Amino acid sequence: MGFSFLPKDQNFFDLFSKQAGFAVSAATLFVEITSKGVYDDEAVRKMRNLEHQADEVTHEIIDRLNKTFITPFDREDIYTLTKELDSVIDMLYTITNRMKVYNINEANHDLIEFSTVIEKSVQALTTAIEGLKDTKHPKIALDSCIEVNRLENIGDNMRDAILAKLFETAQDPVYLIKWKEIYQFAETVLDICEDVAHVVESIIVKQA
Amino acid sequence: MGFSFLPKDQNFFDLFSKQAGFAVSAATLFVEITSKGVYDDEAVRKMRNLEHQADEVTHEIIDRLNKTFITPFDREDIYTLTKELDSVIDMLYTITNRMKVYNINEANHDLIEFSTVIEKSVQALTTAIEGLKDTKHPKIALDSCIEVNRLENIGDNMRDAILAKLFETAQDPVYLIKWKEIYQFAETVLDICEDVAHVVESIIVKQA
Amino acid sequence: MGFSFLPKDQNFFDLFSKQAGFAVSAATLFVEITSKGVYDDEAVRKMRNLEHQADEVTHEIIDRLNKTFITPFDREDIYTLTKELDSVIDMLYTITNRMKVYNINEANHDLIEFSTVIEKSVQALTTAIEGLKDTKHPKIALDSCIEVNRLENIGDNMRDAILAKLFETAQDPVYLIKWKEIYQFAETVLDICEDVAHVVESIIVKQA
Repeated sequence: MGFSFLPKDQNFFDLFSKQAGFAVSAATLFVEITSKGVYDDEAVRKMRNLEHQADEVTHEIIDRLNKTFITPFDREDIYTLTKELDSVIDMLYTITNRMKVYNINEANHDLIEFSTVIEKSVQALTTAIEGLKDTKHPKIALDSCIEVNRLENIGDNMRDAILAKLFETAQDPVYLIKWKEIYQFAETVLDICEDVAHVVESIIVKQA
Repeated sequence: MGFSFLPKDQNFFDLFSKQAGFAVSAATLFVEITSKGVYDDEAVRKMRNLEHQADEVTHEIIDRLNKTFITPFDREDIYTLTKELDSVIDMLYTITNRMKVYNINEANHDLIEFSTVIEKSVQALTTAIEGLKDTKHPKIALDSCIEVNRLENIGDNMRDAILAKLFETAQDPVYLIKWKEIYQFAETVLDICEDVAHVVESIIVKQA
Repeated sequence: MGFSFLPKDQNFFDLFSKQAGFAVSAATLFVEITSKGVYDDEAVRKMRNLEHQADEVTHEIIDRLNKTFITPFDREDIYTLTKELDSVIDMLYTITNRMKVYNINEANHDLIEFSTVIEKSVQALTTAIEGLKDTKHPKIALDSCIEVNRLENIGDNMRDAILAKLFETAQDPVYLIKWKEIYQFAETVLDICEDVAHVVESIIVKQA
């Protein structure tokens, strides 16, 4: 498919980089917010700003996809990649906003831990996505995908341990309902990162 | 792709119109049911009837899609459009049925408001889908898609306000569990409408 | 598409058979576990082993798909079939593990009943998938798909009856939260089986 690597296709890579950059910014902001434990209008507004900017890049990618005849890889893969990457940022916004809706204002140790795992996963994902520019040398990209899978497993175990503790100790069912949802949302971010990594792996295999 | 607009392709548009018509009927019935606040066997039966009729149209579209070589737009778009439109009606059935399962019999102000936003969204969606018959003049269709997006944002804010109130005031966790789920289902209907609108926009961009 | 039935394509059928075999093993193991009502490390480990082995087959199918130019049916159908079949097994693992997380150790009559319906559905699905080897004589496969749909309806009604009873009688909201989720997961397994059956039906229609 070498002939499809025309200069204009470079735009897809630039747009993916831009979108991945917003995902990293959102993950870093999420670490800051959870570490402070303040879920106020300002926290929600900051996250929404990132989410809106990332949305625009997503629309740009899909728009370009719809208008481009020859794409650097399968159309379906480009579509899934951008939609799932967008979902990562949407989900971080959803968690931040839901914390405010639930009127939670505390720095929760388990959620901070989750946020740092999410940040690592999004960083590895960004490395994997950058690797799509040079699929002839995919080692770094593939290693990053393995790292994303590893972090998803860690997230699974964290969620299980946290849920077990929550259900064992919960006196207040309303408290339990809130936090059960928040931790599941946090684990879902890692699931979506893993989905993105699978798309990256697929693209690399097809280019091989 | 002009040559693909053969008479027989007209069938897809007729079938989409028919399916959209069932979605509007279901949304209008949902407004009636929530306004009365009676979730009995009859309400569930009426909604299921619509859901079954809409299902048959969905199967007809997919069947025709599997047997048709040239389609008026991308096969994948036709498939997603019909599946998501079907999900709108399924979800309205799910909510109605779940209200009966939860033995709720009250006209809830917030749910009535949600149902009227859903009805507006499904109506706008129908206008957008009708617009697919003439993608050379897409203004009305595209405006309707924007309206569907606007209504989804309104739904998000409604759900957040309702959830905040619910968690602030809930004495009874069982009450909270029921209504939290119902409102989230209601908001999901608007999310699915937005997904359909995105497919319509994609189709129009590709035809341009 | 007759010429695509090259010997090497047979591999896809063998891999689907293998994957379906793991789904049956997982469903049978799930009946055993629910009947005993013991959700301990051993139960989770046994289910995870099956899930891991099934995962490897899924990856092999996707890998082969990415490297194969001519496939026995639509690439998208092969992809969806293997992903959804994998989800059946994942979900059975999720339920088993979640029961352990919730520290539930009882043989619950309703869950046993659900597990036997799931086992029947997965067995019918396996018959349907085997039928893909000979799409000129699709009667047995199509009848099996109808059976999967029938079992999904039974599951819907079971879940509704169980939820109604749960909400009517629940004294303890924490008990309710746990079991509501478990039953919904169980019903989701049947939903996914139905999705797989729809893919099988689509493939057969396209080959006709």
